Amino acid sequence: MKKRNGGVHSKDEIRYIVDGFTNGDIPDYQMSAWLMCVYFNGMNKEETLELTNTMADSGDRLDLSRIDGIKVDKHSTGGVGDKTTFIVAPILASLGVPIAKMSGRGLGHTGGTIDKLESIEGFNVSISENEFIDNVNNIKLSLVGQTGNLAPADKKIYALRDVTAAVDSLPLIASSIMSKKLAAGADVIVLDVKCGSGAFMKDENSASALAKTMVDIGNGAGRRTYGIITDMNEPLGCKVGNALELYEAIEVLKLNNLDNVDYGIKRLLEVSLTLAAYMLMGASSVSYDEARRTCEEAITSGKALDKFAEFVAAQGGNKDMIYNPDKLPKARYIVPVYMEKEGYIASCNTSEVGMVNLILGGGRETKESKIDLAVGIDIRKHIGDYVKVDEVFAYIHADDESIIEEAKQRLINAYKLSAEKVEPEKIIKGVVE
Amino acid sequence: MKKRNGGVHSKDEIRYIVDGFTNGDIPDYQMSAWLMCVYFNGMNKEETLELTNTMADSGDRLDLSRIDGIKVDKHSTGGVGDKTTFIVAPILASLGVPIAKMSGRGLGHTGGTIDKLESIEGFNVSISENEFIDNVNNIKLSLVGQTGNLAPADKKIYALRDVTAAVDSLPLIASSIMSKKLAAGADVIVLDVKCGSGAFMKDENSASALAKTMVDIGNGAGRRTYGIITDMNEPLGCKVGNALELYEAIEVLKLNNLDNVDYGIKRLLEVSLTLAAYMLMGASSVSYDEARRTCEEAITSGKALDKFAEFVAAQGGNKDMIYNPDKLPKARYIVPVYMEKEGYIASCNTSEVGMVNLILGGGRETKESKIDLAVGIDIRKHIGDYVKVDEVFAYIHADDESIIEEAKQRLINAYKLSAEKVEPEKIIKGVVE
Repeated sequence: MKKRNGGVHSKDEIRYIVDGFTNGDIPDYQMSAWLMCVYFNGMNKEETLELTNTMADSGDRLDLSRIDGIKVDKHSTGGVGDKTTFIVAPILASLGVPIAKMSGRGLGHTGGTIDKLESIEGFNVSISENEFIDNVNNIKLSLVGQTGNLAPADKKIYALRDVTAAVDSLPLIASSIMSKKLAAGADVIVLDVKCGSGAFMKDENSASALAKTMVDIGNGAGRRTYGIITDMNEPLGCKVGNALELYEAIEVLKLNNLDNVDYGIKRLLEVSLTLAAYMLMGASSVSYDEARRTCEEAITSGKALDKFAEFVAAQGGNKDMIYNPDKLPKARYIVPVYMEKEGYIASCNTSEVGMVNLILGGGRETKESKIDLAVGIDIRKHIGDYVKVDEVFAYIHADDESIIEEAKQRLINAYKLSAEKVEPEKIIKGVVE
Repeated sequence: MKKRNGGVHSKDEIRYIVDGFTNGDIPDYQMSAWLMCVYFNGMNKEETLELTNTMADSGDRLDLSRIDGIKVDKHSTGGVGDKTTFIVAPILASLGVPIAKMSGRGLGHTGGTIDKLESIEGFNVSISENEFIDNVNNIKLSLVGQTGNLAPADKKIYALRDVTAAVDSLPLIASSIMSKKLAAGADVIVLDVKCGSGAFMKDENSASALAKTMVDIGNGAGRRTYGIITDMNEPLGCKVGNALELYEAIEVLKLNNLDNVDYGIKRLLEVSLTLAAYMLMGASSVSYDEARRTCEEAITSGKALDKFAEFVAAQGGNKDMIYNPDKLPKARYIVPVYMEKEGYIASCNTSEVGMVNLILGGGRETKESKIDLAVGIDIRKHIGDYVKVDEVFAYIHADDESIIEEAKQRLINAYKLSAEKVEPEKIIKGVVE
C-alpha cells in the first residue's frame, strides 16, 4: 500500500520485501502486486540501490580478493552481432588489467559469449573457481560461464516479472542487471547500453535513463561505473552467429592498421575501443585519449591477439584456431542473398536478424535448446549503403538446406530500402559516468 | 499488459480473465498484477459492467420468477447503527411490494441484519428457498441469510484484493457489490451509499462516485437502480447493538406521529422514508412525494408494524416481541456514560463506536466469532447538541462487567467537543438515478 500510494520505502522495508519473497514468507501474489506498484510509481535512487544490494546479498558473492590489481568488468544489455568481449578483454589483459568475467549463454534473438567460445575446439567454459582466479593472476584473463548462486533473489523476482507484465520498469531492469554485477565482484564496471531495434531499449531517452540508473547504482555501491550508450539499430559489425562472430572478432584483433577498414568493422571497432578505453581509465588514471591510444596499439602491435590465444590455450582450447580462424566450425551451405529491388538501406529490424540466426539453428528458443555453432549471417551492406539487385547483400550460413529459403526471406524482409540516402545512426550515442 | 498500458478490455478479455482466475487457469500472481493495473488505470463503464456480469454469472442466480410483481431490493454499503431494513421492508411489504431479501452477518465495526433478527426468539434465518418464495408470495416479505453460491468469482477476487492492497478501487468495489445484487435477482435496486467516518467512503465525492458507478452498472444490467448518499458521520439513530437496533426500528414502526420525534430518530426516519419512497417509485409509477406520503402512512397507520409481526411469525419468530420489544434480550448492566467536560458535540469517530459494540461482545472480529445480541450502546446526544458533565451522554449495555470501563473510555474518546455550536451534516447528501 505504501508503494501503491507513491511512498518511499526505507532500507528495512526493501530488505523485508526482497528477503521475505526470496525465502517464501511473502507470497508471489503480494510480490507481483508490489512489483506493479513499482512499475507505476517508480523508485528513487536510494530505494533502487538498496533493492540492488539486497538482491546481490541474497546469494554468493564472488571473492576476487586473491586477484592482484583493480578488477574490471564489462556488461552489455544485449544485442545482435555483439562480439566486443572477444576484442575488449584481450586488449585489457594484454595491458596488465585483470579481467575475471562471468558470461551467459544466448536466449532468443541475442547471442551469448559462452556459446561463442565453445566454437573453439577443446575450450572449457566451466573451470573451477580456483583455476579461474589462478588464470587471471597468471595471464590476466579468464572467461567462464556463470557459476555459483549469484543473486537468487533477482532470479526469482525476474521469473515473476516475466509472467506479470512487470519487466519494463527502469528501477527493476537496472537493479536486476546490477545485482549480478555487484555479486560478481569487479571494482570497475563498464556498461554497454544498447539502444535501437535490436535492443531492449528502443530509443535513446530510455537507454540513457537506464544507463544513468545503473551508473548511479554502481557508484552508490562503491564501484567506479561508466555507461556507454551504443547503437543497435543494425547488427554490430557484419557477422551474426556463434563461430562467425568469433571469426570477426579475430579479424579485428589481427588488424595492423585501424584507419582503413570496412564500415561494418569500423562500427565494431569503435564500440570495442570506446569500451576498452573506459575500462582502462577505470583501472588507472590516464585520460580517455591516452587510454584509447594505448588500446589501439594493443591491437595493431598484435599483443591483444597473442593474449587471446594465450587465454584460449589456458582454458584447454586449440589456439591454432585463433591464429587461423578459417579452422573454426563452418556451415555446409553458404548462400548469397540479394535484395528484390535496389535502393538505400534505410532501416533494419535488428532483432529479426537475430531470429534468422535462431531459425538457422544458431540461437535458443528456450534455455534447453541445443545450438549449431557454425550457422549464421554475414551482412555485406549497412544502413546508408546503396544496394543493387545483382550485388550480394548478405550470405546465409546454414547446415539445414530446408530452412534456407525462409531464412533468406525473413532476412530480406527485416530491411527497409528507400530511394533517398539515409544517414546511419552515430555508433556511440553518449557516455554516462 | 493491455490494462497496465491504459488499454480498454473487450468483453471477451474480461470474461477470459475473471473465468480463468475463478477456475484456476490464471494464477493468483497474475490476477493480483492485473488488479493493481485496474487500481492505477481504472475501467470504463462497459468494462465495469462486464466485470460485474461475469462475476454474477460465476455462480447461482436466484430465481425469483415464481414471485408475482416487481421485486425490489435494498442494499447498504455498511455503517454503524443502520437498522433501516427493519423499517423499510415492512413498509413496502405492507403496500403490496414483494421484498425477497438476502442479508449478511456483521463483521468488524458494522452490524448485520441477520444477526439482529436472531434477537427474536424462534426466528429462523435459514428457511428453504421454496419457503422463502412462498412467504414472499403470501405475505410479501421474507429475509434470509445468504444461501447458495452467489458470485463465487467475486468472493475469490475479493480475498485476493484484501491481501494485495487492491481493495479501494472504485470499479472493483462497485462490481463486487453489484455482482451479488444482480445474482440476487431483484428488478429494482435501491442503494444506500453511506458516507462519513463510519463508512467505507469517507467523503462525499468518493461516495457520490461509487453511487454513480453502481447505478450505471444496475441500469446497464437492466435493473432500475437508485443510489441514495446518506450521512454516516455518526451512528444512524441512537442505538448500536443487535437487539438494541431492532428495538429502535420497532420504536419507529410504532410511531403514529412522525413530526414530533427526537433528533436521532428523525435522522433514522428520514433515511428509511427516503429509501422506502425510492423503492416504491421503482416498483410503481408514482411521484416521489406521493410515494413518500404513502410510506409515511404505512407507519402511522400501524400497517407496517403489523406486517413486521406477520413476517416474524411466518419465519417461526415470537411476534409478541415485536409488539412488546421490552421482551427482546437485555444486557445485565446498563451504565450511564458522562462526558469529561462540557461543550457542543463536534464530531464522532463512528467506526470506533462500532468497535465499542464489538468489544462489548456485540460484533465479530473474525467470521468465526460468536456474538452477544443484548449488548450495545444507546447514544442520547448527537452532533450539534450541547452536553453538560452531569447529563447522560449515552448508556453502555454490557454483560461482562470487566469490559465496561474500557468501553466507556473508548466511547468518550470517539467524540470531539467544541466551544462553538457545530452544524450537523445533512442526513441525505444526494440521490443518483
